[in-house]
Amino acid sequence: MILKAETLSPHEVYEVLAAVVIPRPIAFITTVSPEGIVNAAPYSFFNVINEDPPMVMFSAGMRKGGKKDTVLNVEITNEFVVNVVTAAILDEVVAASGTYPRTVSEIDVTKLETAPSAVVHPPRIAASPVGLECRLWRQIPLKKDGRILTIGKVVAVFVDDSLLTSGKVDVTKLDAIGRLAGDWFAPVMERIKRALPK
Amino acid sequence: MILKAETLSPHEVYEVLAAVVIPRPIAFITTVSPEGIVNAAPYSFFNVINEDPPMVMFSAGMRKGGKKDTVLNVEITNEFVVNVVTAAILDEVVAASGTYPRTVSEIDVTKLETAPSAVVHPPRIAASPVGLECRLWRQIPLKKDGRILTIGKVVAVFVDDSLLTSGKVDVTKLDAIGRLAGDWFAPVMERIKRALPK
Repeated sequence: MILKAETLSPHEVYEVLAAVVIPRPIAFITTVSPEGIVNAAPYSFFNVINEDPPMVMFSAGMRKGGKKDTVLNVEITNEFVVNVVTAAILDEVVAASGTYPRTVSEIDVTKLETAPSAVVHPPRIAASPVGLECRLWRQIPLKKDGRILTIGKVVAVFVDDSLLTSGKVDVTKLDAIGRLAGDWFAPVMERIKRALPK
Repeated sequence: MILKAETLSPHEVYEVLAAVVIPRPIAFITTVSPEGIVNAAPYSFFNVINEDPPMVMFSAGMRKGGKKDTVLNVEITNEFVVNVVTAAILDEVVAASGTYPRTVSEIDVTKLETAPSAVVHPPRIAASPVGLECRLWRQIPLKKDGRILTIGKVVAVFVDDSLLTSGKVDVTKLDAIGRLAGDWFAPVMERIKRALPK
């Protein structure tokens, strides 16, 4: 089947692209509003994009009436933390994906605990084994009044000691949850090895 | 453990970020050089970033002596195809990740077959169940002589009929392979369901 983009509605495009570009890593992003309210929301249009300097990106849509709290808080405060999602916090992350008024903290809604970050002001999620502390590099609107691509520089990384082998981060110890589409998620369960060409 | 970015080398940063931002979707990207040579190379710093208009991004590093063939071909021809990676073509995709002279086609190296795209010139990989046909929107250098972020608009999507349920793309039918770090890959094997808040 060939689907031409111009024949599909944005919602139809979303359903197709989200179903075929899988599995996606999930960023559970914490930010702080100028009033000190901690926001937490998940984004799966997210990835690492650079190591020199360290950078990650995420793309956030609009909410009714304007920008999402995450985008707004990053715009104002320049800072955010990417928390990695594991099975232990998946239910809370899903709950935090709902729409809440700007004055409501998803930390209160989900009862997740936070821990102070090392460098930036937004706290990390205490139960997440990884926190990427980021400062805004650039926000790129992908369309007028549409999605905004946020690129941040990673200034510090919290890694739980349980993920280390001989002092280095061990990818086989992190049971991250990937995003599929609709109501579906994919835990990293099975790992397969392929030697890369030198 | 807290890792401060400024205390790490780019290689160390790469190893940490690639190990904690998982699982990453893999784009096996086909492009064509002005001489007509088909290039195919995998990128896992890749994701969907928009549905209106449909957009994907990937980040490519430099190779010794300059830009990678994928980046160069997209810059010159404005077109690329993202092929989704399944277990059936994983060995070929890994082989294509090696460094070959610009005059060598990874299609010849891997013996993968191609099929014509519907709208763009680069062919898709025939054995891949999904091909996203893209036109360049913007190439954003993330650092002088460093990685380049390429953003493309998706103009057409090939979806193999085996992925459809009642005419719609069914995320549970696509056995995509996610990227971890080092020599590790993660097939989507188990799927878990969580109802999203309305």
